[in-house]
Amino acid sequence: MSCTRVFVRASRGYSTSVQTSAISKFPEGSTIYSLIQPTGRIHLGNYLGAIRNWRDISSIESRDTKYIFGIADLHALTLPQDPVILKKNRYEAIASILAAGIDPEKCILYHQSSVPEHAELNWILTCITSMGYLNRMTQWKSKAKTGDDSSVYQDEVLANVKAGLLCYPILQTADILLYKSTHVPVGDDQSQHLELCRHTASNFNHAFKTNFFPQPKTLLTPTKKVLSLRNPAKKMSKSDIDQNSCIYVNDSFEITSKKIRKATTDSIQGKITYDPIERPGVSNLLTIISGLTRKPMETTVDELSWITNHKELKDYVSELLEAEFKDTRQLFDELTKNTEYLDKICKNGNDRARSIASTNMKEIKKLTGLD
Amino acid sequence: MSCTRVFVRASRGYSTSVQTSAISKFPEGSTIYSLIQPTGRIHLGNYLGAIRNWRDISSIESRDTKYIFGIADLHALTLPQDPVILKKNRYEAIASILAAGIDPEKCILYHQSSVPEHAELNWILTCITSMGYLNRMTQWKSKAKTGDDSSVYQDEVLANVKAGLLCYPILQTADILLYKSTHVPVGDDQSQHLELCRHTASNFNHAFKTNFFPQPKTLLTPTKKVLSLRNPAKKMSKSDIDQNSCIYVNDSFEITSKKIRKATTDSIQGKITYDPIERPGVSNLLTIISGLTRKPMETTVDELSWITNHKELKDYVSELLEAEFKDTRQLFDELTKNTEYLDKICKNGNDRARSIASTNMKEIKKLTGLD
Repeated sequence: MSCTRVFVRASRGYSTSVQTSAISKFPEGSTIYSLIQPTGRIHLGNYLGAIRNWRDISSIESRDTKYIFGIADLHALTLPQDPVILKKNRYEAIASILAAGIDPEKCILYHQSSVPEHAELNWILTCITSMGYLNRMTQWKSKAKTGDDSSVYQDEVLANVKAGLLCYPILQTADILLYKSTHVPVGDDQSQHLELCRHTASNFNHAFKTNFFPQPKTLLTPTKKVLSLRNPAKKMSKSDIDQNSCIYVNDSFEITSKKIRKATTDSIQGKITYDPIERPGVSNLLTIISGLTRKPMETTVDELSWITNHKELKDYVSELLEAEFKDTRQLFDELTKNTEYLDKICKNGNDRARSIASTNMKEIKKLTGLD
Repeated sequence: MSCTRVFVRASRGYSTSVQTSAISKFPEGSTIYSLIQPTGRIHLGNYLGAIRNWRDISSIESRDTKYIFGIADLHALTLPQDPVILKKNRYEAIASILAAGIDPEKCILYHQSSVPEHAELNWILTCITSMGYLNRMTQWKSKAKTGDDSSVYQDEVLANVKAGLLCYPILQTADILLYKSTHVPVGDDQSQHLELCRHTASNFNHAFKTNFFPQPKTLLTPTKKVLSLRNPAKKMSKSDIDQNSCIYVNDSFEITSKKIRKATTDSIQGKITYDPIERPGVSNLLTIISGLTRKPMETTVDELSWITNHKELKDYVSELLEAEFKDTRQLFDELTKNTEYLDKICKNGNDRARSIASTNMKEIKKLTGLD
């Protein structure tokens, strides 16, 4: 599908989501916006699902398009944080993004907490977001363990759940709208929050008789979700107790190969096939290959017809990972040692982000009577 | 009770509330903090309950004490606002405070929304405030009409209630703690929110192993609540349909006298007595007199023994109001026309507030790992 057709359809309200792979260029004046949480070292799932996708998107040459990527350190506070570790994680997240090849001149790279306008807009939007809508958010329901019945809350559960978890999607909405973003690359699990974002943009525009906020489109990440190497029933996660389940972009070749060798597969002999239900482990390895090579699954499986057993498949994955991460790994290690350089990059990004944010916030204050 | 004794007791944790009238001076380094909502013209209840109390408090000579008073325009957004009216109300609130004699050199006088650190701290505290505590707030329960049973929420009710109403006490806590305030003059109805504020200060200090935030004390306003002149079963309120129920500080002598003449009293003949149950109308007029003269109710009633009927009482109230508001009224009218001067005053106050807020926020960011 050509890019033009995608946007003609979207502008008529037929579509609010676009597959990143369907885009050959962005309309003039677009703002592409995305944040990741500072959880420390980046694993393969973060890399394919977010950061490498950012790099691909920012290499789409489009006139007058802004690329704004950052570290969601305010969102990180919704879970208890050790301040020393959070600070370290903020550095590592920036280092990972740079090591993955994001150009800090072309893209604005910044820390959310360094731009106070996020929190300001967050409050304004908190005042127009209904409790009913927030209570329906799937992430809130799962994190607050309030069950499927959103109308019943249990005192003992809520006693310990922090309000930040409920209000998380409002801050996310503020992040996006603050820059009048037009496209937001996210994973599937954030689609519902993006819906809330569009709903809130409409609410604001309607309440204050303006068309200030655009309707940001969801840019769906082309890569399938990367699963745990040891238990492909769950996502690859840093917090997994079994650290063999998770590959970090700065794992050495030896460690990566060992983890891949230990990856759960199956006892089916012969040709490699993609079948997430019957062969989840093998299919997860194919997802990684397809993600790294940017080739569709069908092509990936076709091209691997020479492989006759799991060892060959695993060796192939390890080599691909080494080719992808050899330079990244080295750069990451150098960068994390050079916090002065990272501070400089962030200072530049913070200033550029702040400049857009403060211009927009001035306008928002005028619209709401706060100027 | 001497001032020293009050604070010795408080510091031992025996007392978190102090009657303003019990204070002859503040401990060195105190910060007195209070905001009012910009609801437009100030009525007699606002005046006696907040603004004149601020003036009295700020005239207590204490070494190295900060007085910070402001307009809670971010809180105002928790209810739908017409931006043009909100802007006008912000000016009128500042004009009322100045007209009432608050010295803008001695006191910092500012708009909450002009200091982005309020919203920043609000988010940080949102992440450490439990839903259970918020759900127990009486104001939330009454505004959200969720009834007494905080464990049951009704979808149809919550669908239209905005999250700002739930999160209101968190922002209030952020306002107070941002300036490391030690004393907060409020009415009775805010006592519960001040409890939450102290609880959150402790939570933060405990979570981040610090003693950064002091435990702010509630300074109870000495004046009893001023009630509606027409229906003394409810508070005097700007939103009352019967505008004869409410006296504004800039009402002319003629209007004030007319409203007082129409005030509901009773048919009890003879001496004036204070009896809120049997004689709510007369008692409300006595509350106004006692408030204006700063004399205890017993003295007030004693000194009014010469009064033999309601007309004499009403004439006396009207004259007292005229003496209190003659200059205020004129000054208010002049000030509201001079928005350039009001802007200048607020610019000065905003800068001074921002200077304290940004210093404290830098420290808070260091403590939380966000620097």
